Amino acid sequence: MPGIRRAIPLYDLLNDEGIGSIERHADRILQEFGIEFRGDAEALRLFGEAGADVRGERVRFEPGLVKHIVQRSAPREFVHRARNPQRSVTIGGQHAAFAPAYGPPFVRDLEKGRRYASLDDFVNFVKLAYASPYLHYSGGTVCEPVDIPVNKRHLDMVYSHMRYSDKPFLGGIINVERARDCIEMCRILFGERTVAENCVMLGNVNVNSPLVYDGIVSQVIRTYAEAGQGVVICPFILGGAMGPVTPTASIAQAHAEAMVGVALTQLVKPGTPAIYGNFLSTMSLRSGAPTFGQPEAALAYMAVGQLARAVGVPLRCGGSFTSAKICDAQAAQESADSLLPALLSGTNFVLHAAGWLEGGLTMGYEKLILDADHLGMMTKMLGGLALDDNAFALDAYREIGHGEHFLGTRHTLANYDTVYYESRVADSNSFEQWELEGSNDAERRALRIWKQQLDEYTAPDLDPAVDEALLAFMKGRKSVMPDAWY
Amino acid sequence: MPGIRRAIPLYDLLNDEGIGSIERHADRILQEFGIEFRGDAEALRLFGEAGADVRGERVRFEPGLVKHIVQRSAPREFVHRARNPQRSVTIGGQHAAFAPAYGPPFVRDLEKGRRYASLDDFVNFVKLAYASPYLHYSGGTVCEPVDIPVNKRHLDMVYSHMRYSDKPFLGGIINVERARDCIEMCRILFGERTVAENCVMLGNVNVNSPLVYDGIVSQVIRTYAEAGQGVVICPFILGGAMGPVTPTASIAQAHAEAMVGVALTQLVKPGTPAIYGNFLSTMSLRSGAPTFGQPEAALAYMAVGQLARAVGVPLRCGGSFTSAKICDAQAAQESADSLLPALLSGTNFVLHAAGWLEGGLTMGYEKLILDADHLGMMTKMLGGLALDDNAFALDAYREIGHGEHFLGTRHTLANYDTVYYESRVADSNSFEQWELEGSNDAERRALRIWKQQLDEYTAPDLDPAVDEALLAFMKGRKSVMPDAWY
Repeated sequence: MPGIRRAIPLYDLLNDEGIGSIERHADRILQEFGIEFRGDAEALRLFGEAGADVRGERVRFEPGLVKHIVQRSAPREFVHRARNPQRSVTIGGQHAAFAPAYGPPFVRDLEKGRRYASLDDFVNFVKLAYASPYLHYSGGTVCEPVDIPVNKRHLDMVYSHMRYSDKPFLGGIINVERARDCIEMCRILFGERTVAENCVMLGNVNVNSPLVYDGIVSQVIRTYAEAGQGVVICPFILGGAMGPVTPTASIAQAHAEAMVGVALTQLVKPGTPAIYGNFLSTMSLRSGAPTFGQPEAALAYMAVGQLARAVGVPLRCGGSFTSAKICDAQAAQESADSLLPALLSGTNFVLHAAGWLEGGLTMGYEKLILDADHLGMMTKMLGGLALDDNAFALDAYREIGHGEHFLGTRHTLANYDTVYYESRVADSNSFEQWELEGSNDAERRALRIWKQQLDEYTAPDLDPAVDEALLAFMKGRKSVMPDAWY
Repeated sequence: MPGIRRAIPLYDLLNDEGIGSIERHADRILQEFGIEFRGDAEALRLFGEAGADVRGERVRFEPGLVKHIVQRSAPREFVHRARNPQRSVTIGGQHAAFAPAYGPPFVRDLEKGRRYASLDDFVNFVKLAYASPYLHYSGGTVCEPVDIPVNKRHLDMVYSHMRYSDKPFLGGIINVERARDCIEMCRILFGERTVAENCVMLGNVNVNSPLVYDGIVSQVIRTYAEAGQGVVICPFILGGAMGPVTPTASIAQAHAEAMVGVALTQLVKPGTPAIYGNFLSTMSLRSGAPTFGQPEAALAYMAVGQLARAVGVPLRCGGSFTSAKICDAQAAQESADSLLPALLSGTNFVLHAAGWLEGGLTMGYEKLILDADHLGMMTKMLGGLALDDNAFALDAYREIGHGEHFLGTRHTLANYDTVYYESRVADSNSFEQWELEGSNDAERRALRIWKQQLDEYTAPDLDPAVDEALLAFMKGRKSVMPDAWY
């Protein structure tokens, strides 16, 4: 099964007392301030029935109650089934899976620059994610196809994932109707029974932080859960805005918010596959703009990993984040420093693992290639260090003398082509060779690669009858909706 | 005292058995193959006297002997004294210190491109390192001033560090004569007694891997140790060339080599400040060129950190490494992925922390600025996460309602200007603002910063009598040497 099985230990930033302190503060937030569920009587009813203190739309919890609800039935790991079973991934435990960026209204490439995204771009990104061995997901809203009416594009997006890729994907979450459409399309693709018995789609929902779930969000959570589909509950907090400016407070708040969302999935249907999500970032003191790849977020990811493990649910955290507008040194540094801490802290599902630019406003063609290459490095790193006889190579010393090189030893020849990760984008040639080849920077080299990958793309097989049924469903749904553009 | 005091835990890649296994293999290398000390009878004598099995120039050690020699007297931490005592740094334990790149014959900036380095460039880099709050060292051979005769440039280099900076620095190590000149200049600057009683200069020497110390290297080690000055012992191993191609083997070999060098310092003079160094990298399968920032090196750094701690000596490891020729996405990714693993593994001294390009052949003006900014982020990260009442910010929730923003809370206002690291180079503005300001990438923004820093540079005070004495010493030394150019 694809996805990554982590062979290296986790990094623990805090000791038990530190983690306990954050859990206690989260409990205090839940007890003293509570969470508001606005316009969703059924969610209020479920929480009341489970023992919460419901007054109006405010739901308060005794310390430990939410954790208890979660731990009673939430799976520690689950399989996200792909239509190609060889591409199904396990989410949770020692596993990790990578998905492209989600949500950008713009796209950018080096030749055509930044522009509004279209369905053509969307399909291109599905194809590029499909081409990468290091992206396990086809993605969700890999970009917003703004040339399609806003109330219909979920159909084209999910269809594109189904038609042009056979990897796992994420479905629509904007409202209940669209979530239902996506579930219906899954039933056509996978069959009713498979959908009833398996997680075949994830919905990623953001909490309306601080401390609010609006009715649409909680209804979408319930819709996915009722259909047995996976839900990622993601507090979205820029420190100082949707949470306090100090990272520790935002971590505690996010913990409270994520736990309550996961608890809701379990109250709707015990055993629902749910992911504890996290999106925390910082801001520039000069402008108030969100910043990424900064040290405070790295520390937060490390603590969040420990909190998710303390509860025992799969974790979504980190990504290849940046506020850079192009694939420059800033973009790469911020992305690298956003990803490694999340992986060392045990993240199981990385959304936004490739393509993200400009604080998430832009999906980058070259950025996707650079990030996917970097994911290959991270995959190798998570595999750890071999400690067997071949790894120690004592025989190699018997072949050569002191001060001589190992290039020609049998050990080198036997290991040469598998021992190191080989980047497709990095240029390690001499300056002279690099200059001779055009003095291209990494972004320029990535341009060539995505073009080549699109040229070489071949669609995975899809049963024509299923394809027809999907197209007929979309046509039917579109025919009863007037176009909406905002 | 400057330098960093790490407040976050270390990352342990291997369990005790894994570390023990590497130590045993290193012991086996030392016992079965031994280390050659070529052309240094005194080193052979010292090892023989300490119980090693010396045959010809080959020195073999019973398991545990080298570790015993090291642990008997090598300091776990020591102070590297700067001429400005407020800039002295502690090396070892929970401390970390950053020094610029070392050794490049070329320099590069965005306007003038890549060219041979000159003394002017050298002085510029000393000034830029002096200007950065995140570089604790002025450096060593920050670039090779190739406009100065090769046999005289150590004088100009050490003088530049003494004159244009008051931070700690590294001295010449090419041969004994130059090492002695540098020590002599320290005696002029610091006074004889201070030099006799303190580490005021580090010498960084590379082992002639595999398993060889040539006479020059071991004599320079002895020269520094006799003068009580600090020595960094650094095996320099590109996997497949100076060590086996599998990282684990190169780690074990490097461990054996570094330990023996540290042991030599202790046999010369017990208590000599010594640093266990490490430089391991990988290669491209396509070209055989060295590669940097790759996952195998990251794993190696993590293991090396554990090995150095098992011995109890300060560690030099990692850096802002890259094989990129310019400050592009490749440079930043490789540098970030080279630095964070080394810091999480407890590195105490990072040489090549800023400026390195092109596998170490080029010192970059913009790269120094970008790296120094990144060091600021790492410094913040090593400071950890606060867990006090202010960090948890419970009062802030009492000020605002559910779903409202924290921007105007008293807690935000009280913490706003200190809570987040503020990058000088990153651009987190909107796309429109960024475009309005010229669509500059990170490298272009760094260009402006180094120019401004050189414009604003003011030299630290230096007693004119000392300055004259230094210049007189240099003049005297230069007058007895014919110019040598290679």
